[in-house]
Amino acid sequence: MRAMRAMRAAGTARGVALAAAAATAVALAVAAWRRARPVREVLFFPSRPCCIEALLAEAAEPGAPARPCPCPLPSGDTALSRLVRRLLSARRSLDLCLFSFSCPQLARAVQLLHRRGVRVRLVTDAQYMGLHGSQVGRLRHAGIQVRHDQHSGYMHHKFAIVDQRMLITGSLNWTTQAIQSNRENVLVVEDAEYVKAFQDEFERIWEEYNPANYRFFPERQ
Amino acid sequence: MRAMRAMRAAGTARGVALAAAAATAVALAVAAWRRARPVREVLFFPSRPCCIEALLAEAAEPGAPARPCPCPLPSGDTALSRLVRRLLSARRSLDLCLFSFSCPQLARAVQLLHRRGVRVRLVTDAQYMGLHGSQVGRLRHAGIQVRHDQHSGYMHHKFAIVDQRMLITGSLNWTTQAIQSNRENVLVVEDAEYVKAFQDEFERIWEEYNPANYRFFPERQ
Repeated sequence: MRAMRAMRAAGTARGVALAAAAATAVALAVAAWRRARPVREVLFFPSRPCCIEALLAEAAEPGAPARPCPCPLPSGDTALSRLVRRLLSARRSLDLCLFSFSCPQLARAVQLLHRRGVRVRLVTDAQYMGLHGSQVGRLRHAGIQVRHDQHSGYMHHKFAIVDQRMLITGSLNWTTQAIQSNRENVLVVEDAEYVKAFQDEFERIWEEYNPANYRFFPERQ
Repeated sequence: MRAMRAMRAAGTARGVALAAAAATAVALAVAAWRRARPVREVLFFPSRPCCIEALLAEAAEPGAPARPCPCPLPSGDTALSRLVRRLLSARRSLDLCLFSFSCPQLARAVQLLHRRGVRVRLVTDAQYMGLHGSQVGRLRHAGIQVRHDQHSGYMHHKFAIVDQRMLITGSLNWTTQAIQSNRENVLVVEDAEYVKAFQDEFERIWEEYNPANYRFFPERQ
Protein backbone atom coordinates (compact mmCIF):
# COMPACT_ATOMS: atom_id res chain seq x y z
CA MET A 1 0.00 0.00 0.00
CA ARG A 2 2.81 2.39 1.00
CA ALA A 3 4.73 1.36 -2.13
CA MET A 4 1.68 2.13 -4.29
CA ARG A 5 1.26 5.55 -2.61
CA ALA A 6 4.96 6.27 -3.21
CA MET A 7 4.58 5.24 -6.86
CA ARG A 8 1.49 7.44 -7.21
CA ALA A 9 3.31 10.38 -5.56
CA ALA A 10 6.30 9.84 -7.84
CA GLY A 11 3.93 9.72 -10.84
CA THR A 12 2.25 12.98 -9.76
CA ALA A 13 5.64 14.67 -9.28
CA ARG A 14 6.72 13.44 -12.72
CA GLY A 15 3.45 14.78 -14.15
CA VAL A 16 3.90 18.16 -12.50
CA ALA A 17 7.52 18.32 -13.72
CA LEU A 18 6.41 17.36 -17.24
CA ALA A 19 3.63 19.96 -17.22
CA ALA A 20 6.08 22.63 -15.98
CA ALA A 21 8.59 21.66 -18.68
CA ALA A 22 5.85 21.77 -21.31
CA ALA A 23 4.69 25.20 -20.09
CA THR A 24 8.29 26.49 -20.16
CA ALA A 25 8.77 25.10 -23.67
CA VAL A 26 5.53 26.79 -24.86
CA ALA A 27 6.55 30.09 -23.21
CA LEU A 28 10.00 29.91 -24.85
CA ALA A 29 8.46 29.05 -28.22
CA VAL A 30 6.02 32.00 -27.94
CA ALA A 31 8.89 34.34 -26.95
CA ALA A 32 11.02 33.08 -29.86
CA TRP A 33 8.08 33.50 -32.26
CA ARG A 34 7.52 37.04 -30.95
CA ARG A 35 11.21 37.83 -31.45
CA ALA A 36 11.23 36.30 -34.92
CA ARG A 37 7.97 37.91 -36.06
CA PRO A 38 8.76 41.11 -37.97
CA VAL A 39 7.62 44.29 -36.23
CA ARG A 40 4.49 45.87 -37.75
CA GLU A 41 3.27 48.76 -35.66
CA VAL A 42 1.28 51.94 -36.24
CA LEU A 43 1.61 54.79 -33.75
CA PHE A 44 -0.85 57.68 -33.70
CA PHE A 45 -0.20 61.03 -32.08
CA PRO A 46 -0.80 63.25 -30.10
CA SER A 47 0.80 61.15 -27.40
CA ARG A 48 -0.22 61.49 -23.78
CA PRO A 49 2.61 63.28 -21.93
CA CYS A 50 4.83 60.69 -20.30
CA CYS A 51 8.13 60.34 -18.48
CA ILE A 52 10.77 58.34 -20.39
CA GLU A 53 13.51 58.59 -17.71
CA ALA A 54 13.16 54.91 -16.77
CA LEU A 55 13.56 53.89 -20.44
CA LEU A 56 16.67 56.04 -20.88
CA ALA A 57 18.18 54.86 -17.57
CA GLU A 58 17.61 51.21 -18.46
CA ALA A 59 19.20 51.77 -21.89
CA ALA A 60 22.19 53.59 -20.33
CA GLU A 61 22.82 50.96 -17.65
CA PRO A 62 20.95 47.74 -18.40
CA GLY A 63 20.04 45.90 -15.21
CA ALA A 64 20.90 48.81 -12.87
CA PRO A 65 18.39 49.32 -10.04
CA ALA A 66 15.62 51.72 -11.16
CA ARG A 67 15.73 55.17 -9.59
CA PRO A 68 12.29 56.77 -9.34
CA CYS A 69 11.96 60.00 -11.34
CA PRO A 70 10.71 62.98 -9.31
CA CYS A 71 8.66 64.39 -12.22
CA PRO A 72 4.87 64.18 -11.94
CA LEU A 73 4.34 62.53 -15.37
CA PRO A 74 3.21 58.92 -15.63
CA SER A 75 5.63 56.47 -17.26
CA GLY A 76 3.01 54.33 -18.98
CA ASP A 77 2.72 52.91 -22.46
CA THR A 78 2.25 55.79 -24.94
CA ALA A 79 3.01 56.48 -28.60
CA LEU A 80 6.11 58.43 -27.50
CA SER A 81 7.40 55.70 -25.17
CA ARG A 82 6.89 53.12 -27.93
CA LEU A 83 8.82 55.27 -30.41
CA VAL A 84 11.66 55.72 -27.90
CA ARG A 85 11.76 51.97 -27.19
CA ARG A 86 12.10 51.23 -30.93
CA LEU A 87 14.95 53.72 -31.26
CA LEU A 88 16.75 52.40 -28.18
CA SER A 89 16.69 48.89 -29.67
CA ALA A 90 19.50 50.01 -32.06
CA ARG A 91 22.71 48.04 -31.59
CA ARG A 92 24.85 48.98 -34.61
CA SER A 93 23.43 51.92 -36.59
CA LEU A 94 20.78 54.62 -36.62
CA ASP A 95 20.22 56.60 -39.81
CA LEU A 96 18.00 59.65 -39.32
CA CYS A 97 16.48 61.70 -42.13
CA LEU A 98 14.50 64.44 -40.35
CA PHE A 99 13.06 67.73 -41.55
CA SER A 100 12.84 69.14 -38.04
CA PHE A 101 14.39 67.83 -34.81
CA SER A 102 13.72 69.89 -31.69
CA CYS A 103 12.35 67.35 -29.18
CA PRO A 104 14.87 67.17 -26.27
CA GLN A 105 13.66 63.72 -25.16
CA LEU A 106 14.32 62.16 -28.57
CA ALA A 107 17.68 63.99 -28.78
CA ARG A 108 18.68 62.43 -25.45
CA ALA A 109 17.77 58.97 -26.75
CA VAL A 110 19.88 59.56 -29.88
CA GLN A 111 22.85 60.87 -27.85
CA LEU A 112 22.64 57.86 -25.57
CA LEU A 113 22.87 55.52 -28.59
CA HIS A 114 25.86 57.50 -29.89
CA ARG A 115 27.62 57.15 -26.51
CA ARG A 116 26.86 53.43 -26.56
CA GLY A 117 28.82 53.10 -29.82
CA VAL A 118 25.90 52.99 -32.27
CA ARG A 119 26.88 54.73 -35.54
CA VAL A 120 24.41 57.62 -35.80
CA ARG A 121 24.07 59.68 -39.00
CA LEU A 122 21.62 62.58 -39.32
CA VAL A 123 20.40 64.25 -42.50
CA THR A 124 18.33 67.37 -41.94
CA ASP A 125 16.96 70.52 -43.53
CA ALA A 126 19.26 73.57 -43.70
CA GLN A 127 16.45 76.06 -43.11
CA TYR A 128 15.01 74.29 -40.08
CA MET A 129 18.21 73.12 -38.38
CA GLY A 130 19.00 76.65 -37.17
CA LEU A 131 15.58 77.46 -35.72
CA HIS A 132 15.15 78.14 -32.00
CA GLY A 133 15.01 74.91 -30.04
CA SER A 134 16.61 72.76 -32.76
CA GLN A 135 18.62 69.88 -31.29
CA VAL A 136 20.93 69.61 -34.30
CA GLY A 137 23.71 71.78 -32.82
CA ARG A 138 23.66 69.79 -29.59
CA LEU A 139 23.96 66.51 -31.50
CA ARG A 140 26.84 67.89 -33.58
CA HIS A 141 28.58 69.01 -30.38
CA ALA A 142 28.21 65.47 -29.07
CA GLY A 143 30.15 64.23 -32.11
CA ILE A 144 27.26 62.95 -34.23
CA GLN A 145 27.68 63.26 -38.00
CA VAL A 146 25.16 65.69 -39.51
CA ARG A 147 24.61 66.66 -43.14
CA HIS A 148 22.05 69.05 -44.65
CA ASP A 149 20.75 70.19 -48.01
CA GLN A 150 22.00 73.21 -49.90
CA HIS A 151 18.97 73.99 -52.06
CA SER A 152 15.69 75.87 -51.78
CA GLY A 153 13.32 72.87 -51.53
CA TYR A 154 12.83 71.25 -48.14
CA MET A 155 14.48 68.02 -46.99
CA HIS A 156 11.03 67.03 -45.74
CA HIS A 157 11.49 63.30 -44.96
CA LYS A 158 10.79 62.14 -41.40
CA PHE A 159 12.23 58.66 -41.19
CA ALA A 160 14.70 56.61 -39.18
CA ILE A 161 16.33 53.27 -39.94
CA VAL A 162 17.46 51.12 -37.02
CA ASP A 163 20.30 48.63 -37.68
CA GLN A 164 19.45 48.66 -41.43
CA ARG A 165 16.55 46.43 -40.36
CA MET A 166 13.65 48.50 -39.05
CA LEU A 167 12.04 51.49 -40.75
CA ILE A 168 10.28 54.18 -38.71
CA THR A 169 8.46 56.63 -40.99
CA GLY A 170 5.41 58.86 -41.13
CA SER A 171 4.12 62.41 -40.83
CA LEU A 172 5.74 63.15 -37.46
CA ASN A 173 8.44 65.79 -37.21
CA TRP A 174 10.55 65.20 -34.11
CA THR A 175 9.24 68.21 -32.22
CA THR A 176 7.49 68.40 -28.85
CA GLN A 177 4.61 70.32 -30.50
CA ALA A 178 4.05 67.50 -33.01
CA ILE A 179 4.29 64.77 -30.37
CA GLN A 180 2.00 66.42 -27.82
CA SER A 181 -0.44 68.46 -29.91
CA ASN A 182 -0.72 67.29 -33.54
CA ARG A 183 -2.59 64.52 -35.27
CA GLU A 184 0.30 62.43 -36.63
CA ASN A 185 1.15 58.88 -37.68
CA VAL A 186 4.28 56.75 -37.56
CA LEU A 187 4.69 53.33 -39.15
CA VAL A 188 7.26 50.92 -37.71
CA VAL A 189 8.06 48.12 -40.16
CA GLU A 190 10.62 45.37 -40.31
CA ASP A 191 10.32 44.60 -43.99
CA ALA A 192 13.42 44.12 -46.13
CA GLU A 193 11.85 45.61 -49.29
CA TYR A 194 10.69 48.86 -47.65
CA VAL A 195 13.86 49.17 -45.56
CA LYS A 196 16.04 48.79 -48.68
CA ALA A 197 14.12 51.49 -50.58
CA PHE A 198 14.53 53.97 -47.71
CA GLN A 199 18.15 52.94 -46.97
CA ASP A 200 19.01 53.57 -50.66
CA GLU A 201 17.30 56.98 -50.46
CA PHE A 202 19.27 57.75 -47.30
CA GLU A 203 22.60 56.84 -48.92
CA ARG A 204 21.76 58.91 -52.04
CA ILE A 205 20.99 61.96 -49.89
CA TRP A 206 23.98 61.37 -47.57
CA GLU A 207 26.28 61.40 -50.59
CA GLU A 208 24.56 64.33 -52.27
CA TYR A 209 24.84 66.42 -49.08
CA ASN A 210 28.52 65.58 -48.56
CA PRO A 211 30.22 68.90 -47.73
CA ALA A 212 32.97 67.98 -50.20
CA ASN A 213 30.35 68.57 -52.92
CA TYR A 214 29.24 72.01 -51.70
CA ARG A 215 29.23 74.77 -54.30
CA PHE A 216 29.83 78.18 -52.81
CA PHE A 217 30.01 80.09 -56.10
CA PRO A 218 28.24 79.56 -59.39
CA GLU A 219 30.52 77.61 -61.70
CA ARG A 220 31.95 79.38 -64.73
CA GLN A 221 30.40 78.53 -68.05
CA MET B 1 3.46 12.40 -101.04
CA ARG B 2 0.98 15.29 -101.31
CA ALA B 3 -1.11 13.69 -98.52
CA MET B 4 1.97 13.50 -96.26
CA ARG B 5 2.80 17.15 -96.94
CA ALA B 6 -0.79 18.14 -96.11
CA MET B 7 -0.57 16.13 -92.86
CA ARG B 8 2.74 17.76 -91.93
CA ALA B 9 1.32 21.24 -92.67
CA ALA B 10 -1.75 20.48 -90.58
CA GLY B 11 0.55 19.29 -87.75
CA THR B 12 2.61 22.49 -87.92
CA ALA B 13 -0.55 24.62 -87.87
CA ARG B 14 -1.83 22.69 -84.85
CA GLY B 15 1.57 23.21 -83.16
CA VAL B 16 1.50 26.96 -83.81
CA ALA B 17 -2.07 27.20 -82.53
CA LEU B 18 -1.13 25.23 -79.41
CA ALA B 19 1.93 27.43 -78.78
CA ALA B 20 -0.17 30.59 -79.22
CA ALA B 21 -2.81 29.24 -76.82
CA ALA B 22 -0.12 28.38 -74.28
CA ALA B 23 1.45 31.85 -74.59
CA THR B 24 -1.97 33.48 -74.10
CA ALA B 25 -2.64 31.30 -71.05
CA VAL B 26 0.74 32.26 -69.53
CA ALA B 27 0.13 35.96 -70.23
CA LEU B 28 -3.35 35.76 -68.65
CA ALA B 29 -1.94 33.93 -65.61
CA VAL B 30 0.81 36.55 -65.17
CA ALA B 31 -1.77 39.36 -65.49
CA ALA B 32 -4.06 37.66 -62.95
CA TRP B 33 -1.12 37.16 -60.55
CA ARG B 34 -0.15 40.82 -60.94
CA ARG B 35 -3.75 41.87 -60.22
CA ALA B 36 -3.97 39.57 -57.21
CA ARG B 37 -0.58 40.54 -55.73
CA PRO B 38 -1.07 43.28 -53.13
CA VAL B 39 0.40 46.65 -54.11
CA ARG B 40 3.66 47.53 -52.31
CA GLU B 41 5.20 50.68 -53.72
CA VAL B 42 7.49 53.43 -52.47
CA LEU B 43 7.49 56.78 -54.26
CA PHE B 44 10.21 59.34 -53.71
CA PHE B 45 9.93 63.01 -54.55
CA PRO B 46 10.78 65.53 -56.00
CA SER B 47 9.00 64.24 -59.08
CA ARG B 48 10.10 65.27 -62.55
CA PRO B 49 7.49 67.71 -63.91
CA CYS B 50 5.03 65.77 -66.07
CA CYS B 51 1.72 66.15 -67.88
CA ILE B 52 -1.13 64.07 -66.43
CA GLU B 53 -3.79 65.17 -68.95
CA ALA B 54 -3.81 61.78 -70.66
CA LEU B 55 -4.35 60.02 -67.31
CA LEU B 56 -7.22 62.34 -66.38
CA ALA B 57 -8.82 62.07 -69.85
CA GLU B 58 -8.64 58.28 -69.79
CA ALA B 59 -10.20 58.24 -66.31
CA ALA B 60 -12.97 60.64 -67.39
CA GLU B 61 -13.84 58.75 -70.57
CA PRO B 62 -12.32 55.26 -70.57
CA GLY B 63 -11.55 54.08 -74.08
CA ALA B 64 -12.09 57.50 -75.72
CA PRO B 65 -9.53 58.37 -78.41
CA ALA B 66 -6.56 60.16 -76.81
CA ARG B 67 -6.29 63.88 -77.58
CA PRO B 68 -2.70 65.13 -77.52
CA CYS B 69 -2.06 67.82 -74.88
CA PRO B 70 -0.47 71.03 -76.22
CA CYS B 71 1.68 71.55 -73.09
CA PRO B 72 5.44 70.99 -73.44
CA LEU B 73 5.75 68.59 -70.48
CA PRO B 74 6.51 64.91 -71.04
CA SER B 75 3.83 62.41 -69.97
CA GLY B 76 6.21 59.71 -68.78
CA ASP B 77 6.32 57.54 -65.69
CA THR B 78 7.04 59.73 -62.64
CA ALA B 79 6.32 59.67 -58.91
CA LEU B 80 3.44 62.13 -59.52
CA SER B 81 1.91 60.12 -62.38
CA ARG B 82 2.12 56.96 -60.25
CA LEU B 83 0.40 58.69 -57.35
CA VAL B 84 -2.35 59.97 -59.67
CA ARG B 85 -2.84 56.48 -61.17
CA ARG B 86 -3.29 54.98 -57.68
CA LEU B 87 -5.87 57.63 -56.78
CA LEU B 88 -7.75 57.21 -60.05
CA SER B 89 -8.07 53.47 -59.38
CA ALA B 90 -10.78 54.32 -56.77
CA ARG B 91 -14.18 52.84 -57.61
CA ARG B 92 -16.24 53.31 -54.44
CA SER B 93 -14.55 55.57 -51.87
CA LEU B 94 -11.64 57.91 -51.29
CA ASP B 95 -10.90 59.09 -47.74
CA LEU B 96 -8.38 61.93 -47.57
CA CYS B 97 -6.69 63.15 -44.41
CA LEU B 98 -4.42 66.00 -45.55
CA PHE B 99 -2.67 68.78 -43.68
CA SER B 100 -2.27 70.90 -46.80
CA PHE B 101 -3.92 70.50 -50.22
CA SER B 102 -3.00 73.10 -52.82
CA CYS B 103 -1.87 71.05 -55.85
CA PRO B 104 -4.35 71.76 -58.69
CA GLN B 105 -3.49 68.54 -60.55
CA LEU B 106 -4.34 66.34 -57.56
CA ALA B 107 -7.50 68.42 -56.92
CA ARG B 108 -8.63 67.73 -60.50
CA ALA B 109 -8.08 64.00 -60.00
CA VAL B 110 -10.16 64.09 -56.79
CA GLN B 111 -12.96 66.11 -58.45
CA LEU B 112 -13.03 63.66 -61.33
CA LEU B 113 -13.53 60.77 -58.91
CA HIS B 114 -16.31 62.70 -57.17
CA ARG B 115 -18.07 63.28 -60.52
CA ARG B 116 -17.68 59.59 -61.30
CA GLY B 117 -19.70 58.75 -58.16
CA VAL B 118 -16.86 57.82 -55.84
CA ARG B 119 -17.67 58.88 -52.24
CA VAL B 120 -14.93 61.38 -51.39
CA ARG B 121 -14.42 62.66 -47.82
CA LEU B 122 -11.69 65.14 -46.90
CA VAL B 123 -10.34 65.94 -43.44
CA THR B 124 -7.95 68.88 -43.33
CA ASP B 125 -6.28 71.45 -41.09
CA ALA B 126 -8.25 74.59 -40.23
CA GLN B 127 -5.21 76.87 -40.30
CA TYR B 128 -3.92 75.66 -43.66
CA MET B 129 -7.21 75.24 -45.54
CA GLY B 130 -7.62 79.00 -45.92
CA LEU B 131 -4.13 79.76 -47.21
CA HIS B 132 -3.60 81.21 -50.69
CA GLY B 133 -3.75 78.46 -53.32
CA SER B 134 -5.60 75.96 -51.12
CA GLN B 135 -7.87 73.68 -53.16
CA VAL B 136 -10.23 72.97 -50.25
CA GLY B 137 -12.75 75.69 -51.19
CA ARG B 138 -12.87 74.46 -54.78
CA LEU B 139 -13.51 70.89 -53.64
CA ARG B 140 -16.27 72.06 -51.27
CA HIS B 141 -17.86 74.04 -54.13
CA ALA B 142 -17.82 70.86 -56.18
CA GLY B 143 -19.90 69.17 -53.47
CA ILE B 144 -17.19 67.17 -51.72
CA GLN B 145 -17.63 66.70 -47.95
CA VAL B 146 -14.90 68.48 -45.98
CA ARG B 147 -14.29 68.57 -42.24
CA HIS B 148 -11.52 70.30 -40.28
CA ASP B 149 -10.13 70.53 -36.76
CA GLN B 150 -11.07 73.17 -34.23
CA HIS B 151 -8.01 73.13 -31.99
CA SER B 152 -4.57 74.69 -31.88
CA GLY B 153 -2.50 71.60 -32.82
CA TYR B 154 -2.16 70.72 -36.49
CA MET B 155 -4.12 68.01 -38.30
CA HIS B 156 -0.77 66.98 -39.77
CA HIS B 157 -1.59 63.60 -41.35
CA LYS B 158 -0.97 63.15 -45.09
CA PHE B 159 -2.77 59.98 -46.05
CA ALA B 160 -5.42 58.68 -48.43
CA ILE B 161 -7.38 55.44 -48.39
CA VAL B 162 -8.69 54.09 -51.71
CA ASP B 163 -11.78 51.82 -51.58
CA GLN B 164 -10.96 50.94 -47.92
CA ARG B 165 -8.30 48.73 -49.48
CA MET B 166 -5.20 50.73 -50.34
CA LEU B 167 -3.30 53.09 -48.04
CA ILE B 168 -1.27 55.98 -49.46
CA THR B 169 0.78 57.68 -46.72
CA GLY B 170 4.04 59.49 -46.14
CA SER B 171 5.68 62.87 -45.66
CA LEU B 172 4.18 64.49 -48.76
CA ASN B 173 1.76 67.37 -48.39
CA TRP B 174 -0.35 67.69 -51.52
CA THR B 175 1.28 70.91 -52.73
CA THR B 176 3.08 71.65 -55.98
CA GLN B 177 6.12 72.86 -54.00
CA ALA B 178 6.37 69.52 -52.18
CA ILE B 179 5.89 67.47 -55.35
CA GLN B 180 8.34 69.40 -57.50
CA SER B 181 10.97 70.66 -55.03
CA ASN B 182 11.08 68.71 -51.76
CA ARG B 183 12.64 65.45 -50.70
CA GLU B 184 9.54 63.41 -49.80
CA ASN B 185 8.32 59.85 -49.55
CA VAL B 186 4.99 58.10 -50.10
CA LEU B 187 4.21 54.48 -49.29
CA VAL B 188 1.42 52.72 -51.19
CA VAL B 189 0.32 49.55 -49.42
CA GLU B 190 -2.50 47.10 -49.85
CA ASP B 191 -2.32 45.52 -46.42
CA ALA B 192 -5.48 44.89 -44.40
CA GLU B 193 -3.79 45.51 -41.01
CA TYR B 194 -2.30 48.88 -41.91
CA VAL B 195 -5.40 49.97 -43.84
CA LYS B 196 -7.65 49.15 -40.87
CA ALA B 197 -5.47 51.14 -38.44
CA PHE B 198 -5.60 54.23 -40.69
CA GLN B 199 -9.29 53.76 -41.59
CA ASP B 200 -10.13 53.65 -37.85
CA GLU B 201 -8.07 56.83 -37.30
CA PHE B 202 -9.93 58.47 -40.21
CA GLU B 203 -13.35 57.56 -38.78
CA ARG B 204 -12.34 58.81 -35.30
CA ILE B 205 -11.24 62.17 -36.74
CA TRP B 206 -14.25 62.39 -39.09
CA GLU B 207 -16.59 62.01 -36.11
CA GLU B 208 -14.57 64.32 -33.84
CA TYR B 209 -14.60 67.06 -36.50
CA ASN B 210 -18.35 66.73 -37.14
CA PRO B 211 -19.70 70.32 -37.20
CA ALA B 212 -22.53 69.16 -34.94
CA ASN B 213 -19.88 68.87 -32.22
CA TYR B 214 -18.43 72.38 -32.66
CA ARG B 215 -18.16 74.49 -29.54
CA PHE B 216 -18.39 78.18 -30.25
CA PHE B 217 -18.39 79.38 -26.64
CA PRO B 218 -16.73 77.98 -23.55
CA GLU B 219 -19.26 75.86 -21.67
CA ARG B 220 -20.52 77.09 -18.31
CA GLN B 221 -19.10 75.37 -15.26
